Amino acid sequence: MFLTRTEYDRGVNTFSPEGRLFQVEYAIEAIKLGSTAIGVKTKEGVVLAVEKRITSPLLEPSSVEKIMEIDDHIGCAMSGLIADARTLVEHARVETQNHRFSYGEPMTVESTTQALCDLALRFGEGEEESMSRPFGVSLLIAGHDENGPSLYYTDPSGTFWQCNAKAIGSGSEGADSSLQEQFNKDITLQEAETIAVSILKQVMEEKVTPNNVDIAKVAPAYHLYTPQEVEAVISRL
Amino acid sequence: MFLTRTEYDRGVNTFSPEGRLFQVEYAIEAIKLGSTAIGVKTKEGVVLAVEKRITSPLLEPSSVEKIMEIDDHIGCAMSGLIADARTLVEHARVETQNHRFSYGEPMTVESTTQALCDLALRFGEGEEESMSRPFGVSLLIAGHDENGPSLYYTDPSGTFWQCNAKAIGSGSEGADSSLQEQFNKDITLQEAETIAVSILKQVMEEKVTPNNVDIAKVAPAYHLYTPQEVEAVISRL
Amino acid sequence: MFLTRTEYDRGVNTFSPEGRLFQVEYAIEAIKLGSTAIGVKTKEGVVLAVEKRITSPLLEPSSVEKIMEIDDHIGCAMSGLIADARTLVEHARVETQNHRFSYGEPMTVESTTQALCDLALRFGEGEEESMSRPFGVSLLIAGHDENGPSLYYTDPSGTFWQCNAKAIGSGSEGADSSLQEQFNKDITLQEAETIAVSILKQVMEEKVTPNNVDIAKVAPAYHLYTPQEVEAVISRL
Amino acid sequence: MFLTRTEYDRGVNTFSPEGRLFQVEYAIEAIKLGSTAIGVKTKEGVVLAVEKRITSPLLEPSSVEKIMEIDDHIGCAMSGLIADARTLVEHARVETQNHRFSYGEPMTVESTTQALCDLALRFGEGEEESMSRPFGVSLLIAGHDENGPSLYYTDPSGTFWQCNAKAIGSGSEGADSSLQEQFNKDITLQEAETIAVSILKQVMEEKVTPNNVDIAKVAPAYHLYTPQEVEAVISRL
Amino acid sequence: MFLTRTEYDRGVNTFSPEGRLFQVEYAIEAIKLGSTAIGVKTKEGVVLAVEKRITSPLLEPSSVEKIMEIDDHIGCAMSGLIADARTLVEHARVETQNHRFSYGEPMTVESTTQALCDLALRFGEGEEESMSRPFGVSLLIAGHDENGPSLYYTDPSGTFWQCNAKAIGSGSEGADSSLQEQFNKDITLQEAETIAVSILKQVMEEKVTPNNVDIAKVAPAYHLYTPQEVEAVISRL
Amino acid sequence: MFLTRTEYDRGVNTFSPEGRLFQVEYAIEAIKLGSTAIGVKTKEGVVLAVEKRITSPLLEPSSVEKIMEIDDHIGCAMSGLIADARTLVEHARVETQNHRFSYGEPMTVESTTQALCDLALRFGEGEEESMSRPFGVSLLIAGHDENGPSLYYTDPSGTFWQCNAKAIGSGSEGADSSLQEQFNKDITLQEAETIAVSILKQVMEEKVTPNNVDIAKVAPAYHLYTPQEVEAVISRL
Amino acid sequence: MFLTRTEYDRGVNTFSPEGRLFQVEYAIEAIKLGSTAIGVKTKEGVVLAVEKRITSPLLEPSSVEKIMEIDDHIGCAMSGLIADARTLVEHARVETQNHRFSYGEPMTVESTTQALCDLALRFGEGEEESMSRPFGVSLLIAGHDENGPSLYYTDPSGTFWQCNAKAIGSGSEGADSSLQEQFNKDITLQEAETIAVSILKQVMEEKVTPNNVDIAKVAPAYHLYTPQEVEAVISRL
Repeated sequence: MFLTRTEYDRGVNTFSPEGRLFQVEYAIEAIKLGSTAIGVKTKEGVVLAVEKRITSPLLEPSSVEKIMEIDDHIGCAMSGLIADARTLVEHARVETQNHRFSYGEPMTVESTTQALCDLALRFGEGEEESMSRPFGVSLLIAGHDENGPSLYYTDPSGTFWQCNAKAIGSGSEGADSSLQEQFNKDITLQEAETIAVSILKQVMEEKVTPNNVDIAKVAPAYHLYTPQEVEAVISRL
Repeated sequence: MFLTRTEYDRGVNTFSPEGRLFQVEYAIEAIKLGSTAIGVKTKEGVVLAVEKRITSPLLEPSSVEKIMEIDDHIGCAMSGLIADARTLVEHARVETQNHRFSYGEPMTVESTTQALCDLALRFGEGEEESMSRPFGVSLLIAGHDENGPSLYYTDPSGTFWQCNAKAIGSGSEGADSSLQEQFNKDITLQEAETIAVSILKQVMEEKVTPNNVDIAKVAPAYHLYTPQEVEAVISRL
Repeated sequence: MFLTRTEYDRGVNTFSPEGRLFQVEYAIEAIKLGSTAIGVKTKEGVVLAVEKRITSPLLEPSSVEKIMEIDDHIGCAMSGLIADARTLVEHARVETQNHRFSYGEPMTVESTTQALCDLALRFGEGEEESMSRPFGVSLLIAGHDENGPSLYYTDPSGTFWQCNAKAIGSGSEGADSSLQEQFNKDITLQEAETIAVSILKQVMEEKVTPNNVDIAKVAPAYHLYTPQEVEAVISRL
Repeated sequence: MFLTRTEYDRGVNTFSPEGRLFQVEYAIEAIKLGSTAIGVKTKEGVVLAVEKRITSPLLEPSSVEKIMEIDDHIGCAMSGLIADARTLVEHARVETQNHRFSYGEPMTVESTTQALCDLALRFGEGEEESMSRPFGVSLLIAGHDENGPSLYYTDPSGTFWQCNAKAIGSGSEGADSSLQEQFNKDITLQEAETIAVSILKQVMEEKVTPNNVDIAKVAPAYHLYTPQEVEAVISRL
Repeated sequence: MFLTRTEYDRGVNTFSPEGRLFQVEYAIEAIKLGSTAIGVKTKEGVVLAVEKRITSPLLEPSSVEKIMEIDDHIGCAMSGLIADARTLVEHARVETQNHRFSYGEPMTVESTTQALCDLALRFGEGEEESMSRPFGVSLLIAGHDENGPSLYYTDPSGTFWQCNAKAIGSGSEGADSSLQEQFNKDITLQEAETIAVSILKQVMEEKVTPNNVDIAKVAPAYHLYTPQEVEAVISRL
Repeated sequence: MFLTRTEYDRGVNTFSPEGRLFQVEYAIEAIKLGSTAIGVKTKEGVVLAVEKRITSPLLEPSSVEKIMEIDDHIGCAMSGLIADARTLVEHARVETQNHRFSYGEPMTVESTTQALCDLALRFGEGEEESMSRPFGVSLLIAGHDENGPSLYYTDPSGTFWQCNAKAIGSGSEGADSSLQEQFNKDITLQEAETIAVSILKQVMEEKVTPNNVDIAKVAPAYHLYTPQEVEAVISRL
Repeated sequence: MFLTRTEYDRGVNTFSPEGRLFQVEYAIEAIKLGSTAIGVKTKEGVVLAVEKRITSPLLEPSSVEKIMEIDDHIGCAMSGLIADARTLVEHARVETQNHRFSYGEPMTVESTTQALCDLALRFGEGEEESMSRPFGVSLLIAGHDENGPSLYYTDPSGTFWQCNAKAIGSGSEGADSSLQEQFNKDITLQEAETIAVSILKQVMEEKVTPNNVDIAKVAPAYHLYTPQEVEAVISRL
């Protein structure tokens, strides 16, 4: 069973007899090994919170970036291969800057997400910005545009969904259940912060500190919390 | 038996000794895993109805787009890999816009369908817009042009047929049988709505709601139903 | 025996130890799965007749095109992969239009056939219009030029022959025998219609109707029969 | 034994441990399956005669072309894959026309042969006119230039030899023996016709008729015999 | 177990079923075979110290360069394949020079590190400066810019982290433990020198001498210690 | 043993574990199957003599060219695949003509040989004039320039040596031994002719005649012997 | 064990699970089959001495070049595939000439060595001057520049080291031991000559003569010894 499956694995972009794309499925596995990230949308804006795995006390926590700004009004949290995420984010930054330059207005959150997914979909084609394998990363894209706040979730297949709340990474299964219990559309941004970090606390194996958690909001502008702001959220739990 | 078959699978675009193209057949399998979509043509116009699989209550139903506009007078429903469908639809949108710009008139529905199929056929050739594997998606293309309303059905091999009514996706077999029983050429658009949604209801495992069903019509312009309009159709069942 | 053969199959364009090109032979197999098409040449012009497999009563019979016009004076019937045939026909249409534009006169039927075969021969070479595998289709090309009416038969190897009468597709073996019995060079166009459709009737498993048979003639201009004209031929049987 | 050989076969242009190029040898096998062709050189000019396999009485014999004109003063007979031969001949026609245009005089027979062989040699290199496999065809090139009449024989390896008489194709072994017995340098062109056709008659399984034999001469211009002229030669046997 | 793994190894940039990239993991193995390098950051600047394996007394110790200058304010220590490191360093030198030329100011240490990682990430894509396999080298990048001193650590996957202290190469495991015990943020540059060299001494199998150890600092400018300066540090142990 | 070796054979230009390039070694095998060629250098000039295998009495002996002129002052004898040799010789002719045109003087024999070997070395690289496999031919290059007469020997690896006398092809082993016995630096050109042809006679299985032996000299200009001149040498034996 | 290793060998530039690059290691094996070369650095300059394998008395000893001039101030000795070495040396000659032209001064020995290694490192990438496999050659590069005399040693991995003395090729192991015993930094150039040739004598299986040994020095200009000068050194042993 396993041996015949390998026949389809080697071609990076080939259907199996059951109509599956194994390389994409394996890339999705890469994300299940990643650290947990959570996004929660409120009427005031969107909150992103991520676990940072600080493998050594000699590591500079601030250099483990798992939340990044794409544009003034868009940020994203990631889980999976960080180097792949950087390529996607860099691509999105260029796209949003080009859009501002060409049209004199910010790119919508959906268009930005679509642009990221276009790049992700076209792996294995030898084109200039595409990779020779699927991108091994999922993103939670938080933004604020003329339609108000929005939260998108992308996976390595280049598919995206709009969500009210979503968790990705190794703890996503438990976190998603908790989010379904605790989320409702009328929570405040502060409540969203509390929900996100308290759920992160459940799935992490260590104590939650400003060193191993990052928080950002887009409300309506992107803002990465300072250690003091993170501490303040933690202290509310 | 199975082992020798794999010899032909790996080449994405290679004939087997029986004259078959396995990668295309496997892509067709991918569609059998997809959600069900139904199209019905009447003299007044064409109705499209799709099942939306909302895997989590936190997902924004409106972001699960399985019916998309191609041009004012053309829309399509899809089943299979949604990211692949987006690429095809984006390609068709550019083609129809270019046609309007060059000729000052809308592209016919058949030409639009042919353009989509040309792209689908040429996988594995390293050209600019083509993919390195077959597109894993089937489309129901509804349109209205100088020849009146029309409904086309495309599959991953790049072949297309004109239909009076057609179902695609995991429930297509049962739905096609029901369509053959209930369809005749003289039904009204409203009757077509009722037929499409009632058949969808049969093949879906859940209760039908405006959250998990989308409806659109091209009569003669493309219109995606609001949740209220969908509710109205459901209430007629 | 079979296993060693596969060694040569994967290279799309490679000789086997016996000097055979398996991919081309497998493409020829694809045609044996196709619907039957028949061509008959008379002194007045050429008749083409094809079986259309209407797999569902909801399908629009006129959209199953197995006879296509290439130019005013050339048409062709096909058997095998219809999407491949469309690519070849589209290529031939461009060639004949270019010829008219450059030389102010129609392209001869033989030159048009040669142009189609040149494209078919060069598969697997990564060039612009060529495919990465053999074209899985046979054509019967009917035309009329300064040399009078002519009928050509092409196969996936890029070879062509001029014929007086020829059948291709799943029923070709029986149909060819019947043609040899019934054909002579002095039949009228009307007799050719009768012969073609009566032989088609023998090899088809269903009753012959204007819905599942298409007829065209080039005499000297291309004309696809209307359902009424097809009905008239059937009624003569 | 056979299995290890296949390791070398797949690379289209790779040496085996014994210093052999199997793909070229297999292409030579393809010619052994082809119809027989014979060339005979005399002081007056060169005669070419070929067997035509008319597989069906409905086939137009004149469309089975196994002797083709390259230029006024050069013609060739072929055995093997006819579609490949057409590509080579077309290439040679362009070369000879270019030579006439550039130098105001006909290309010599040897230069024309060399140009054909250069193309044949460079298979598997992805260049514009070359194929991705060896050409599966042998040619007998008959010509007349400032050095008088000449006859060249080419094989799929891109090698050529000048001959006084030569047979290629499935009956070549027996035909070559007969040629050695019957040929001498002082025969007339008419005697050469008789020798070529009588030997062809021996190796063919059917009765020789103007329908299944083609004859051409270059003496000093290329001329393909009419059925009447062929009949005249046959009647002399 | 091992055999099935090899299926994934050959594609240089392919996910395994567990979501792993084996070629990158194997490149990381290459570094475990390399000599040990240590970096320590202080408020005054950063110290780099490396083991040099002098395999023969006839080798010129100074030609075994394992610490290199990238720009006035950036240097790096390496472990793994030295030829690969030279390519990366050369690339970084061009980037920093271009930055100075375009913007009239030095490139930040993080941007320089990112540029190195971009190149490392894109292996297997056939682009101009990228390699056909992962770079088999880890770097410790020491720099000083407007944000003060900083120390980055990169691995073959194209990922980077900012550290206070870090060891790479065959002795990195033991050295990292020692660094965690001995490092604190308030040590002086001189103390950092002592810590780095004393830990290097523990993991090396030979006596520490100016011949088999190199030391450099960026404080704020890059400076490679002379043998006398190295001797002075060793004598302090 | 044999099976594992094949793993290395398929890559045309890949080292085996023992540091060998099998494709080059197999190409050298191809030469051992070739006809014998001998070169002898004297103070007056260089003599080349080759065996011609006339496989059929119908073949024109003069068309089996195994000695070719490169420039007025350079000729070469060959053994192995003649079509490959023609490509190399054609390349050398262009190089020497270009040199004359650019510098107004003949190219030296060594530079010409180097140019040939550069082309031979770069097989498998997809460049314009290079082949996709090693050239299966060895050359004896005889020339005369400002340094006097010289004789070079090249093999398929792109290596060359200067020799006083050398034999290549199937009879080279015995012929080389005989050359070592009979050659000294003070022989005359006439003696060299006699030595070369008498040794050729030993290794050939047939009687030596002007039909199956070619002789050429470069003394100081290239001259291919007429049948009469060859006969004269043979008669001296 | 051996079989699984082969999985990694075929990709020319792929890491094994232990982090090794087998193709590079196999290329290093190719050098162990090569003739021995020795380099010795003194304060006056550098001496290179090589064994020449004269396989036949008919070979011109001076045409077996294993020491070559790169520029006036740089020469190199080689062991391994001579045709590969020629490509590297030709590349270095162009680089040094370009440097002189652009900067009006000679290229340093280290820069020249680096340029050679850059080319060696980038094999398997399809670029213009790079090869499709590692270069199967090691070089001893002797030079003299503003830093005085220097001796570099390069291997097929593209790595280089500066040495006081070094042996490469089949006898390198024994020769290196002898060099370590006999070398000190204060020897004269004449003593270096004696050491190099006496050690070469130990590892060669034949008597040392001016025919089978070449000597060169860079002191400060490159000079290849005449047979008389070689004889003089031999007579001093």
